[in-house]
Amino acid sequence: MTARPVLRVKPREGKRARAGAPWLFSNEIDMPKGLAPGAVVNVTADDGRSFGTGVFNPKSLIAVRLFDPAPDVALDEDFFAAKLGRALKLRASLYPAPYYRLVHAEGDGLPGLVIDRFGDSVVVQITAAGMEALKDTLLAALKRVLAPNRIILRADAPSRSLEGLPSYVEAEGSGRITIEENGVTYFADAAAGQKTGWYYDQRDNRAFMATLAKDKSVLDAYSYTGGFALAAAKAGARDVAGLESSAPAVALAEEAAAAGQLKASFIKTDVFEELERLGAAKETFDVVIADPPPFVKAKKDLETGAKAYRKLARLAAAVTAPEGFLFIASCSHNIGMDRLAFECATGIARSGRRLRLIRASGAGPDHPIHPMLPESAYLKALVYALD
Amino acid sequence: MTARPVLRVKPREGKRARAGAPWLFSNEIDMPKGLAPGAVVNVTADDGRSFGTGVFNPKSLIAVRLFDPAPDVALDEDFFAAKLGRALKLRASLYPAPYYRLVHAEGDGLPGLVIDRFGDSVVVQITAAGMEALKDTLLAALKRVLAPNRIILRADAPSRSLEGLPSYVEAEGSGRITIEENGVTYFADAAAGQKTGWYYDQRDNRAFMATLAKDKSVLDAYSYTGGFALAAAKAGARDVAGLESSAPAVALAEEAAAAGQLKASFIKTDVFEELERLGAAKETFDVVIADPPPFVKAKKDLETGAKAYRKLARLAAAVTAPEGFLFIASCSHNIGMDRLAFECATGIARSGRRLRLIRASGAGPDHPIHPMLPESAYLKALVYALD
Repeated sequence: MTARPVLRVKPREGKRARAGAPWLFSNEIDMPKGLAPGAVVNVTADDGRSFGTGVFNPKSLIAVRLFDPAPDVALDEDFFAAKLGRALKLRASLYPAPYYRLVHAEGDGLPGLVIDRFGDSVVVQITAAGMEALKDTLLAALKRVLAPNRIILRADAPSRSLEGLPSYVEAEGSGRITIEENGVTYFADAAAGQKTGWYYDQRDNRAFMATLAKDKSVLDAYSYTGGFALAAAKAGARDVAGLESSAPAVALAEEAAAAGQLKASFIKTDVFEELERLGAAKETFDVVIADPPPFVKAKKDLETGAKAYRKLARLAAAVTAPEGFLFIASCSHNIGMDRLAFECATGIARSGRRLRLIRASGAGPDHPIHPMLPESAYLKALVYALD
Repeated sequence: MTARPVLRVKPREGKRARAGAPWLFSNEIDMPKGLAPGAVVNVTADDGRSFGTGVFNPKSLIAVRLFDPAPDVALDEDFFAAKLGRALKLRASLYPAPYYRLVHAEGDGLPGLVIDRFGDSVVVQITAAGMEALKDTLLAALKRVLAPNRIILRADAPSRSLEGLPSYVEAEGSGRITIEENGVTYFADAAAGQKTGWYYDQRDNRAFMATLAKDKSVLDAYSYTGGFALAAAKAGARDVAGLESSAPAVALAEEAAAAGQLKASFIKTDVFEELERLGAAKETFDVVIADPPPFVKAKKDLETGAKAYRKLARLAAAVTAPEGFLFIASCSHNIGMDRLAFECATGIARSGRRLRLIRASGAGPDHPIHPMLPESAYLKALVYALD
């Protein structure tokens, strides 16, 4: 048995990792030669401090993702089974039914891994080289802990290119999944849809917006497979319209509406264009929901993306009825809550409306945050009461 | 009729107010001579920009609180009736019963005013000189809009000294109030208790913690009149213990427990000392809730207060059972969410526990935030899942 490679943190570097963060950047360590992506390493500092067990990737800015604070921890099937069991126990204590994000990467001590559970099916998303190298061990542990009927592997996130990883999807049979959430049954395509096919992160926000929807008219911009729209319909909305650019997503939303006998219509359209058109026609809705794709995909896009959120807020406010509610979310971790709130407030004010911010929230509790990695709290949702 | 006094913002000053904030600081304006505290003024800049109608107080750092973006707005009974009606309409759309914060100061366009509603009783808290000067008009409007059976006036917040205001309480009869929240009936003393007597801001957080409490043992540190403790008992907690330093608060909590046939016991004690004692005795609870008084009362207290939150987190983690949940809140607007989360995570880690942050939230939607005054979002609540 050969000794495990040891990576050294440069003197006075690794400040965040010293405070407990699970990342070391390439400029913080003496980069080794000849160590393959995905190599399991021990990390130490020249003052003797150990950072524990990590996985190395020379191709990523995040050169080491730490898996355990102790050194020499074997990243074997038992290791993964313990982490998955811990993740499962938390969700079982939070939810009455097996529909949730089972693993939320660093938040569950499993860097580069997301698992969403849909009853007997799981969707596994791998986004980092370390997890890719450990894939077979992980999947063996997953089968041991959960014994799912079906595993759909999504290894096609755009961020994989930053890790030097190829893009692929492995689905046993169809990617069709059924989701039970807030008393509504939804459908999605876990093999071809966005991310894992479904966004559990908005579960609590959908429930909150549904409480405002009874007897009201609701517009769900970026309705995807109907998450907010059908929750509002189930809560007794007078009428619900969804806007969505993806035809397959519209079809799945319509199918779920029909299956649940929920009154909601969905339009395949460009959302900005449709909002402009509705605003020009002076059509308004009592509750307007805008949950767009990320407008700030990289740090360099912050100013452009911030303007897009401002514009969205202005257009959405224009179609919000007097005394109506407006929900705006961002899943861009590159824009902070304060900046997002400023852009939204400015956009709404520019549409000539007065506003009160009544709620600021994030993802649900099945998306735990590593306490020293606040940027993993990517989802930000704001609800405004307009005059 | 004499013309209304006009205050001038200094050239290039008033940056935040220009972006929409409702405050002008004493160093941002040409301070007038001979203008009384509470004088209603128009505010303009030398470039001709109007900041609208405000109220002046020479004794406060916040020299002008803006009441309306238009100049020459009469702050008369109609003005207050309109603002109160707007505030009422929002709450009526949010809650099925008349128990809520009716007015949340700047968030509802009424600087220096808080009104909590408890059925037919209202508690009015005035914290700024402008509102104090307009008190009679405000109360007339309140009677017109809401016709409450009883008005309890709390003019005894410590912050009134910063405004040069005296401290007093006016209660018609007893200060005893009954609160209906999350299906539990609570009691409080609105004339002598903390703030308005009750903390509606934690309503949603109490509901969330209650979902974790079924069949569990729960410790509610700083239990006050039983808010979290009785919500947990109602949700089916196995046993609930509250720690509270105020004997009258303990008595009210015990009375509510008895009236609701809820199983919870309350101990009059110093919370830090009792947590130390429980920790030394290795007593643990499945769910631990710590909602302390503000540890950072002024900016200068930040470092001392941050240490207190860290210590509280360490002591509370020590009495949290394996796989338990720990809730820590701060109502200090002088410590931000990021710093609070860092101190809590550090304190928990120092007690030797691993942790996941599963929820970060604020006050409920009856505490609207002025969109350009993020510091009015004073409440921060964190929930950790411990290993």
